Amino acid sequence: MSDGGDPDPDLDSGDPTRGPAAEAELALHLEVASTPKPGNVDREREYPDLRFEHFQAGAVGARPGLEAAAGVGVGVGRAFERAVRGMSRQSGGNTQFGALLLLAPLVRAAGTGDGPLTRERARAVVRETTVADAAAFFRAFEHVEVAVGDPPPDADDLDVRRGADAVPAVEERGLTLLEVLELGADEDGVAAEWAAGFPRAFRAGERIRDGEGPIVERAADAFLALLAGEPDSLVATRHGREVAREVRERAADLRERDAPEGDVTAFAAELVERGVNPGTTADLTAGGLFVALEGGAEV
Amino acid sequence: MSDGGDPDPDLDSGDPTRGPAAEAELALHLEVASTPKPGNVDREREYPDLRFEHFQAGAVGARPGLEAAAGVGVGVGRAFERAVRGMSRQSGGNTQFGALLLLAPLVRAAGTGDGPLTRERARAVVRETTVADAAAFFRAFEHVEVAVGDPPPDADDLDVRRGADAVPAVEERGLTLLEVLELGADEDGVAAEWAAGFPRAFRAGERIRDGEGPIVERAADAFLALLAGEPDSLVATRHGREVAREVRERAADLRERDAPEGDVTAFAAELVERGVNPGTTADLTAGGLFVALEGGAEV
Repeated sequence: MSDGGDPDPDLDSGDPTRGPAAEAELALHLEVASTPKPGNVDREREYPDLRFEHFQAGAVGARPGLEAAAGVGVGVGRAFERAVRGMSRQSGGNTQFGALLLLAPLVRAAGTGDGPLTRERARAVVRETTVADAAAFFRAFEHVEVAVGDPPPDADDLDVRRGADAVPAVEERGLTLLEVLELGADEDGVAAEWAAGFPRAFRAGERIRDGEGPIVERAADAFLALLAGEPDSLVATRHGREVAREVRERAADLRERDAPEGDVTAFAAELVERGVNPGTTADLTAGGLFVALEGGAEV
Repeated sequence: MSDGGDPDPDLDSGDPTRGPAAEAELALHLEVASTPKPGNVDREREYPDLRFEHFQAGAVGARPGLEAAAGVGVGVGRAFERAVRGMSRQSGGNTQFGALLLLAPLVRAAGTGDGPLTRERARAVVRETTVADAAAFFRAFEHVEVAVGDPPPDADDLDVRRGADAVPAVEERGLTLLEVLELGADEDGVAAEWAAGFPRAFRAGERIRDGEGPIVERAADAFLALLAGEPDSLVATRHGREVAREVRERAADLRERDAPEGDVTAFAAELVERGVNPGTTADLTAGGLFVALEGGAEV
């Protein structure tokens, strides 16, 4: 900066031009721009009612909730609920519910920790969640239609499809948000990340950070690696475990034989044609992008 | 919202989930997603060093400056400078300088006016700009390399390429930001919008708002109409007036004969091949998208 004129003091000091909330929003944008991501909305493929621009509006709308997640004034659950409410202000429906559930604790960990984002710090954040966070999580389901499976047999009163109506049960049982998500870890890949301390998001983040080429190409590569690693839980919920297994195996095959991009693109087109959308894997990719950006990856 | 549990009061009250700053950021994202936009970076075409993700990072980074523009605590010029500084935090260089110069007063008008955004209100905002706003405008050129032409013959001391070094001359002459931009109105399409009260941005906004189909398709249509309307000033600066005229005429021809999308796409590929990037027309499209969103267009 020159000292000519009357420079803006905020420009050189605390102006949070790209803090954790901005990096998280950017991760959502980069995720949907990455292509090919078989079965997902990306720059080149979309569904008639779930289009690229719905994800853009979802990411922009989530920003105030992500800003709340980066601070300390609001619980992680409430910050998540705000992000979901903002995300839902577009006509495509649920674009990034799972990604935001993954990002909320990671953003809190990045925004409140000393030094770089670590799994230890993220684990501490989820361990510190409260019953109020859990109540806010259930209320978030009021803002948007989310595809979910049945609750565990002994937890009908905690069915997320009940939305805010489940809050009294949550409070009576005294469950924290981490405990609620641990109940769903077998059925949902994002809940599993909370329960296990985010191993897949961090591994994807390292892959993206350490790769070469444009970050969106590294993210597409990380997506395929994640898809090959475990059956996608959204596909399992919507199409059954058999389809989720098939998709995982075909992704693994594409990677094992280092298939040309044309084969990956053909697989992508086929999945969109069948309506098979591995959305949980996209959520994990967004989490990985955030970890990579926090770890110094540049755009 | 249920009253079960302990709902977040901010969720129902002042939480600015999608105010003017968010709409402006969204306009930047939707602009780059719109395709085909001959010669511009879009979802399907990019330059090796100026890619889609640079625009995404530019838009996200601009958000704090846009938030400043939406309020009253910071002058429009300083808000613009903040937005440019945040925008420039990516490796593609200048992605949205012109778009932000157009958006800053429109966001201020939307954020501080009563009722809907109007040209009258936007004109009042630029008329109220000060010498300090002009100084901040010059300082914004310190943050990023911007392609500009020579200054008017009697205004060498106001050459924007001098950046902050031009600030003393601005102050000595006592020029407001509007007056500075009026000096450049013949050479720059965004400056011309400031001088004339934003006629093209508002016309594009009405076209986008009143059209049918996905908003990104309406924006691509508005882009072609703008390109056919006047020679692009960035093309004129970089390639000469003759090339700018040729591009305008070919866009007009495509529109007059209601050319099939294949012809528009071929024109788009040709311009990218030649490195002819009508960036000012993209800036105007972003302005139009903002006007449309403020006018009730939905994503």
